[in-house]
Amino acid sequence: MKKIIVLGSTGSIGRQTLEVIRSFPGEFKLLGLGAGKNWRLLSDQIKEFRPAAAALAEEQELLNLQNSLDPTCCPDLAWGRQGMEDLARLPGAELVVVAITGAAGIYPTLAALNDGRDVALANKETLVAAGQLVMDLASRKNAAILPVDSEHSAIWQCLNGAYPGVVEKIILTASGGPFRQLGKKQLESVTVDMALRHPNWVMGSKITVDSATLMNKGLEVIEAKWLFGVNYSQIEVVIHPQSVIHSAVEFKDGSVLAQMGVPDMRLPIQYALTYPDRLAGSVPRLRLTDLKGLTFEEPDQTRFPALGLAFEAGRTGGTMPAVLSAANEIAVDLFLREELSFTGIPALVGKVMEQHRIIINPGLGDIMEADRWARQTARQAVFNL
Amino acid sequence: MKKIIVLGSTGSIGRQTLEVIRSFPGEFKLLGLGAGKNWRLLSDQIKEFRPAAAALAEEQELLNLQNSLDPTCCPDLAWGRQGMEDLARLPGAELVVVAITGAAGIYPTLAALNDGRDVALANKETLVAAGQLVMDLASRKNAAILPVDSEHSAIWQCLNGAYPGVVEKIILTASGGPFRQLGKKQLESVTVDMALRHPNWVMGSKITVDSATLMNKGLEVIEAKWLFGVNYSQIEVVIHPQSVIHSAVEFKDGSVLAQMGVPDMRLPIQYALTYPDRLAGSVPRLRLTDLKGLTFEEPDQTRFPALGLAFEAGRTGGTMPAVLSAANEIAVDLFLREELSFTGIPALVGKVMEQHRIIINPGLGDIMEADRWARQTARQAVFNL
Repeated sequence: MKKIIVLGSTGSIGRQTLEVIRSFPGEFKLLGLGAGKNWRLLSDQIKEFRPAAAALAEEQELLNLQNSLDPTCCPDLAWGRQGMEDLARLPGAELVVVAITGAAGIYPTLAALNDGRDVALANKETLVAAGQLVMDLASRKNAAILPVDSEHSAIWQCLNGAYPGVVEKIILTASGGPFRQLGKKQLESVTVDMALRHPNWVMGSKITVDSATLMNKGLEVIEAKWLFGVNYSQIEVVIHPQSVIHSAVEFKDGSVLAQMGVPDMRLPIQYALTYPDRLAGSVPRLRLTDLKGLTFEEPDQTRFPALGLAFEAGRTGGTMPAVLSAANEIAVDLFLREELSFTGIPALVGKVMEQHRIIINPGLGDIMEADRWARQTARQAVFNL
Repeated sequence: MKKIIVLGSTGSIGRQTLEVIRSFPGEFKLLGLGAGKNWRLLSDQIKEFRPAAAALAEEQELLNLQNSLDPTCCPDLAWGRQGMEDLARLPGAELVVVAITGAAGIYPTLAALNDGRDVALANKETLVAAGQLVMDLASRKNAAILPVDSEHSAIWQCLNGAYPGVVEKIILTASGGPFRQLGKKQLESVTVDMALRHPNWVMGSKITVDSATLMNKGLEVIEAKWLFGVNYSQIEVVIHPQSVIHSAVEFKDGSVLAQMGVPDMRLPIQYALTYPDRLAGSVPRLRLTDLKGLTFEEPDQTRFPALGLAFEAGRTGGTMPAVLSAANEIAVDLFLREELSFTGIPALVGKVMEQHRIIINPGLGDIMEADRWARQTARQAVFNL
């Protein structure tokens, strides 16, 4: 039995991770569970999986959790950043699934890697904001970072151990989101309701909006750069509305390997959990002959400037990707509160990036300070947009 | 420099193999060249590549070849089956490319494998007729069989060392040929000229007709069974008219890996030659965004019964696949001479299969006798069709 810790177990990816674990009785042992605020769901998960330890983000919720549990079979409980880091370092675990959203995911990721422990990474900010730090640490400690999201899992499966020298380019596919065919004027009047209806994937609201702006693909570009050791010029984004090809790799000789499947997050989650093995799961099968046809388009960076901003932030490097990501988080939040238009999201992010004074080789403190600065600046800049 | 022998160097695959070798100066050294009857082209190839040895199928052509060469720099020359086998065993060679067509390709393949030498196999009959013998020998001598044709190369790249236990099924794609959309009546009046115009690939005339009847795909099904150690129930043929996905593998977990590229035989040839490395070649690049769309259909075994015959022959086993292949060779030849209709090809093959008395665990002699019998029977049976 592979011993696993799941951080962010009450979120969308976390819940699906537990679903995968549940569907393979005897394959996995859950040692620890960490969540944000949802103590009720965490309480249920603890009762089902009986982990040795659990943690929540805030002390108040932890007390609620504690009261909900039978004290005689209670796991070790902790809270906050320290609690989450301790959970990631829990002795005996072989794999830490980091499915926490936001910059908070960086700390437990670093803690796990620092112990030489493999991390199945579903937290975008870790590699976007702190890619260099994280990859250096993983390499020094000989720990692996296993991608959990669909696109990077696809690339990982296509590469399958190929060394960077045989890779010509990485082809990141994007559904194009629900507004792929809207004109510039129409994009300005996109509502929250419209943005939360993603055509192919069922996901959390932040990532659904990011998919609609293409910022999600932009963040994935930066992640891919770090995960697979390529240059930005080797990463190409291709719009593929059917989301059947989850991404592809073109090799030096012109051969292209593509990974395909139904759009179901349990597939990449399961692969990260079972790697290097594969298990016959309950995920629906892809039937090529049922498909209506697969099409591909170039992304339109004029209508969807977020993608260009991400490439720019990535190429600039230093603290800029952290600023991109943090400013975007605020911008999406403002959009979801109906305080910013849909096209205002990339506009606000661009505004914040313009004002940022980059630190070239940032430490973790510099990155967290850039994150804080970008959030504050975004909240102010929205009034001058 | 990788030392290579090319058998069948004047045929379509052979010439393209030399093209690949030519395009990477310093990577390969041609030690030996073997051909059928085309002594003029072989003479030119010898003058260009200066191999240590060469062979032709017949003695008369060998004399013509000898006369065409400067005696002071002449390679060792030989002819016939023995000449070809000796060539395949030439000391110092690391890889023997077997691009001879027909059952004659089996002998040098076995000779090379018996010496523990890797074979890049472009000869269909070898695995179709003698799959069990050939795979047993390769395994005993620890020699590898590297597929050269586009579909098997695709599957090989998708598998990339995965063990059979993680494979759910192999998805062999087929263009469907030029008559994919013709009705049963129209198929009866298909002419030779029509059959030789393949929509996507430029190939020899035998294989072009086999593509049109789907017999080519059927033979590939049997090859795939042996090359990748799967059961026939794990092989699915999917019609994919654009020939962009060259084949795919579905793994146990539902994940599908597909290999894509432009339809250019130099790509799989080059991969077999450079494996496990990949070299940046001159083969045109695939641009997903230039594609009109990829579609998939189930094959229609009523209109194209050759595919079903091949599955049947493969499942029956023993000498039956050799009979399928040999009878088909005669049937295609009769079609090309306008002595048999297009729909007569699978009809004749089926007729011969019906009359065959199977030998279950055949030796090479049994296989060759079945081959001879099938050819003779096909030539007679055509009058009773």
